[in-house]
Amino acid sequence: MIKAAIIGYGNIGRAMVEAVEAAPDFTLCGVVRRSTQGHPLHKALTNVEIVDDVENLSSRPDVALLCTPTRTMREIAEKYLEKGIHTVDSFDIHAQIPMLRGTLDPIAKAHGAVAVVAAGWDPGSDSVVRTILEACAPKGITYTNFGPGMSMGHSVALRAVPGVKDAVSITIPKGSGLHRRMCYVECEEGYDSRLVERKILEDDYFKHDEVHIQFVESVDSVRDKGHGVHIERKGVSGKTHAQRFSFDMLINNPALTSQVMVACARAATRQVPGCYTMIELPPIDLLPGEREEHIARLV
Amino acid sequence: MIKAAIIGYGNIGRAMVEAVEAAPDFTLCGVVRRSTQGHPLHKALTNVEIVDDVENLSSRPDVALLCTPTRTMREIAEKYLEKGIHTVDSFDIHAQIPMLRGTLDPIAKAHGAVAVVAAGWDPGSDSVVRTILEACAPKGITYTNFGPGMSMGHSVALRAVPGVKDAVSITIPKGSGLHRRMCYVECEEGYDSRLVERKILEDDYFKHDEVHIQFVESVDSVRDKGHGVHIERKGVSGKTHAQRFSFDMLINNPALTSQVMVACARAATRQVPGCYTMIELPPIDLLPGEREEHIARLV
Repeated sequence: MIKAAIIGYGNIGRAMVEAVEAAPDFTLCGVVRRSTQGHPLHKALTNVEIVDDVENLSSRPDVALLCTPTRTMREIAEKYLEKGIHTVDSFDIHAQIPMLRGTLDPIAKAHGAVAVVAAGWDPGSDSVVRTILEACAPKGITYTNFGPGMSMGHSVALRAVPGVKDAVSITIPKGSGLHRRMCYVECEEGYDSRLVERKILEDDYFKHDEVHIQFVESVDSVRDKGHGVHIERKGVSGKTHAQRFSFDMLINNPALTSQVMVACARAATRQVPGCYTMIELPPIDLLPGEREEHIARLV
Repeated sequence: MIKAAIIGYGNIGRAMVEAVEAAPDFTLCGVVRRSTQGHPLHKALTNVEIVDDVENLSSRPDVALLCTPTRTMREIAEKYLEKGIHTVDSFDIHAQIPMLRGTLDPIAKAHGAVAVVAAGWDPGSDSVVRTILEACAPKGITYTNFGPGMSMGHSVALRAVPGVKDAVSITIPKGSGLHRRMCYVECEEGYDSRLVERKILEDDYFKHDEVHIQFVESVDSVRDKGHGVHIERKGVSGKTHAQRFSFDMLINNPALTSQVMVACARAATRQVPGCYTMIELPPIDLLPGEREEHIARLV
């Protein structure tokens, strides 16, 4: 059995408890969070150790599942790797992934540990799909169309606008990798919605896209963890043009992210020390059980 | 540069010349075929060495791309592996893949070579998709729906029926992994088409499926190398149900098969000796060029 600790207990951390419990080859050592006081606890956690430092867990984990904000992940990963504990994160700032991998790789190697970075669905399982499609048709264009689903980054940007009490931004795919932003905004009392609208349309996050703003009584009534993607590629295999490929999914976002992270934690225990992205892992290593059985069933 | 020899010059062998020529990191050593006399040659082959034994090539290949019938592949792969030459095949009898892998693995290891087996699109790139979908949603059902496209096995079965001069069987997907067989049949002169039809419907290849038979003047006028697949999975991530995934492609069959084989030949040069299926290869190893660049662009 692989012993896992969950680091952080937000959206992803909550789903991670379920993903670890559902995995036949994992045991949950506990949850590590900044403070073990004053936070609402999930009812599933009644039999789970909750500590503020991994050293306080009664069992040492093999792997730490990092469910903390992206910007804190590098520092936290370093801390665990230095203890010889594998790490898995769903770091999602695409442009900074090579740098994160470059930073963690020597630390992982020095301590005989494995780090798997950017291990969610995008970056993550979608990255594997993009890689396979490029192997199938080396020349061509891949478009990744996100949604419909809530964009975390754009929702945070909306909430930073003066006069906005709460808001979510839903990403709608328009095709060719272009997106429409549907913004659901709840204003503070007394604020002029026309002023709020103008500020949003001037914001860097929104001014390059098609944006629609709807003022609502309660943002909570439109909050939904569903998301999706449509990846399309048309390209050339050998010298044959017009080869067409597409990949679609409609999923619960935190459930899929945590499931992929558990699969990558399993793969981490099967790699030589170092830092990996998902496209560097043999897909078979993501699955529990016998290799021979997977080959007979899936190939 | 990776030096490749193409073994066999049928449908796949012809497409393979184009796939090797289009690959930036490959050079073509030549084509090995049973007899170098009396066969029609492809016009692209004017500058390619054609020999009846790999030892007669002026340059020793690193990898042999096996484009011979599936039933001859094991024996031919053994011969090349014993010379320390990597092999890639698109062996397509799903149930026999574990046995082929088990046979070739010790031979490959003994001679410091790598064999990649079942490396087409199904088995092959589709197998990778099925593996990733199972990692994303471990509980659930995956349906692989083939077509529309020509089934080689069913077409051969049609041609074996007395009175059939030429025939093709087209696979039409009905969903849930079920298929309809559209048979286009050209009869020998003087044969009773009702008798031919009865024989086809009694055949083991056809009697379990929905079959439609059309008698045509010329089968050649419906022959088309296009094929496709629709893979669908609905399953559970963690404890969240109804996660939905699908993968589709519409492709030229020999062009994609040969392209995938070239990608696997590249990956072969990057593995430790042994025998692999595609789900055991890190996807990044399928691509030419710099790892860092792929990570920055595809992850």
